[in-house]
Amino acid sequence: MNIVVQKFGGTSVRNLECQRQVMQKVLRPYREGNKVIVVLSAMAGETNRLLELANQWSDSPDPAEMDSMVSTGEQISCALFTMLLKQQGVKARSLLGFQAPIKTDDCFGKARIRSIDDTRLKELLEEYDVLVMAGFQGCDDEMRITTLGRGGSDTSAVALAAAVKADVCEIYTDVPGVFTTDPNMCTDARKIDRVAYDEMLEMASMGAKVLQIRSVEFAKKYNVTVHVRSTFSDEPGTIVTQEDETMESVLVSGIAYDKDQAQITLVHVKDTPGISAQIFSPLAEKKILVDMIVQNPSKDGVTDMTFTVPRADVDQTIKTLEKLQYEIGYEQLTSNLNVSKVSIIGVGMRNHSGVASHAFQALADENINILMISTSEIKVTCLIDDKYTELAVRTLHKAFKLEEGQHVIETS
Amino acid sequence: MNIVVQKFGGTSVRNLECQRQVMQKVLRPYREGNKVIVVLSAMAGETNRLLELANQWSDSPDPAEMDSMVSTGEQISCALFTMLLKQQGVKARSLLGFQAPIKTDDCFGKARIRSIDDTRLKELLEEYDVLVMAGFQGCDDEMRITTLGRGGSDTSAVALAAAVKADVCEIYTDVPGVFTTDPNMCTDARKIDRVAYDEMLEMASMGAKVLQIRSVEFAKKYNVTVHVRSTFSDEPGTIVTQEDETMESVLVSGIAYDKDQAQITLVHVKDTPGISAQIFSPLAEKKILVDMIVQNPSKDGVTDMTFTVPRADVDQTIKTLEKLQYEIGYEQLTSNLNVSKVSIIGVGMRNHSGVASHAFQALADENINILMISTSEIKVTCLIDDKYTELAVRTLHKAFKLEEGQHVIETS
Repeated sequence: MNIVVQKFGGTSVRNLECQRQVMQKVLRPYREGNKVIVVLSAMAGETNRLLELANQWSDSPDPAEMDSMVSTGEQISCALFTMLLKQQGVKARSLLGFQAPIKTDDCFGKARIRSIDDTRLKELLEEYDVLVMAGFQGCDDEMRITTLGRGGSDTSAVALAAAVKADVCEIYTDVPGVFTTDPNMCTDARKIDRVAYDEMLEMASMGAKVLQIRSVEFAKKYNVTVHVRSTFSDEPGTIVTQEDETMESVLVSGIAYDKDQAQITLVHVKDTPGISAQIFSPLAEKKILVDMIVQNPSKDGVTDMTFTVPRADVDQTIKTLEKLQYEIGYEQLTSNLNVSKVSIIGVGMRNHSGVASHAFQALADENINILMISTSEIKVTCLIDDKYTELAVRTLHKAFKLEEGQHVIETS
Repeated sequence: MNIVVQKFGGTSVRNLECQRQVMQKVLRPYREGNKVIVVLSAMAGETNRLLELANQWSDSPDPAEMDSMVSTGEQISCALFTMLLKQQGVKARSLLGFQAPIKTDDCFGKARIRSIDDTRLKELLEEYDVLVMAGFQGCDDEMRITTLGRGGSDTSAVALAAAVKADVCEIYTDVPGVFTTDPNMCTDARKIDRVAYDEMLEMASMGAKVLQIRSVEFAKKYNVTVHVRSTFSDEPGTIVTQEDETMESVLVSGIAYDKDQAQITLVHVKDTPGISAQIFSPLAEKKILVDMIVQNPSKDGVTDMTFTVPRADVDQTIKTLEKLQYEIGYEQLTSNLNVSKVSIIGVGMRNHSGVASHAFQALADENINILMISTSEIKVTCLIDDKYTELAVRTLHKAFKLEEGQHVIETS
């Protein structure tokens, strides 16, 4: 049995006309003799409408009730879409999270998938040619409805593809695929044909919105080939898959950026063992995501500790740390909201040296000052003044000749 | 454990303000130490909105998908209402049809309840003080969502009350209770304090919309005391319960009418054995509900056959029977759309004679001609020209002194 999983977002199913277009996408693999699992989001705007309703009813709506409520968005889009398919004579039915079932933990609002009953799904695929699956939702052990968090439909699709061992998981979106960088920022941005899971993960964590980060983790873990492509064309998009030799021969696959950053510095921290934990544990408890951390070399037993947090968490970060000033023992806390992160990403870096310095040089040539640097195996991130974000992205894109297609650049 | 079941319709939960009023109703038995099961309908207008959406998508929407879709109405109202309760510190949760579970057959759109898991409900009532149950819905053996048909929330409430052996099942509505007749038609109409299941059944089948007929059948079968009362006041309403001596001492409890009727006559039918089946089986196959049937005494081997059908089914009835004219062997088919049914209902009739003739006389005194008569143990129905409906109702109401309260009327 050849199975294709296709996922369509809220914009793609927002009205009858759009759903008819989606149907054509579904009928293609169906007519080629494949079984199809279609994963749908709620019609655009519906989830927000429901969230607003809940906020009228309660200052802090119960998360379990919230999930029961917002999950109706997918329930409706799936029922409607199945009606369309049945009208075409396709043997189809809708399938809700609890019906599949997609079992999750009970973290309402951001549940994690624990298991999917592949036997049941295979049985249903014997009986039906197309299953229209509600994305974004599952159920806990008590059969209460859970949701997977914003963008969770991507994760639903990849998890289903993994469970039924689908040939491919197609994620349809309003862009043609994954780009070397944000095309709104850099007109030279080019669609990437193939990208490795790890690269995609780094891009997603840097705010590239094309795929939810957890769906990529899932795809990597279960080796699901994901095809990110456009709802509005038949052109192939970007294949997200295992690293291969072609990919490794490319130094840098893409440039990502994140403007939603703030820099915090604790000046003259007493450099004692355990000081890092003293600073960062209270922030972790508040679910504040600390990203780049730099500790200056200690001098006279004191050091400066600098790190970044999402801009929305700055106030809480400052409040939390000010309370602990005496305990931690720092002299001063400074913050800078005008910063952004720019990263170069590529699995090719693993086997090539000089990538980072090539990037630093390119930024220096444009007089862009680097405030902080952090590196991973396949990524180099620079924190810069946020007014240079666009310039930095374009500069790096050009420095690694990303507009020219995927090839090796000699750097040293 | 003392359990109270309360059901609120779509008008009662249509917005935040109304739901706050409903909450006060729920908090009363809760504060008295009862466990409460609240059964809610969808917010007024929501079910129709969804039906219209489905009709845009398909000329004949798949019934199973339709059920999955319209059931979201209750899912939303229940989640919102539970948020309100939780904000008040009440241990509450919502419960959907498949979660209870309320098992039904798989007749989508008009499913019948097969079983309710009372053990599970009792467990939940140990854990929670208020369960907010989605009315109108259940699930079949495959866990597909089913709905019970319009007004099905009444049935949900009564069935739940039966399952958990509730002390009372309160059905809240926008009227103060069950009336001796339609107050819009007869200003003397009086609220009835107590009414027998059988009387309520006859009233419901005559179009009294205060309770869905199947909920009354359920209540009778499982001996559930139903209290029909107003959402907008604290006055007691009408108790629907087992027949007792007080009720039997009342000849007539109420006057019902149904304007949605049409009369069909087959003239000069050959009176042979099996002729009734020949006429009515084809109509039954088309799901046409034939009500009153009168066959004139046969003369020269031919007879006239007269019966009533709902006005909406007249065309199909005529079409069906015209096709069979040769087979059935009748001379002519006539129809009359200007008719209505007026009934007097009362368990007291069982033990008293002269009720029917008292009614006939009253109508005769007003020169209202009776076109057809049918009687049951506790009901006398007259078919009349529909322009006399209001007059007939008022005349009968007065003839049995229903405005004066429940007492025996000497008729013979």
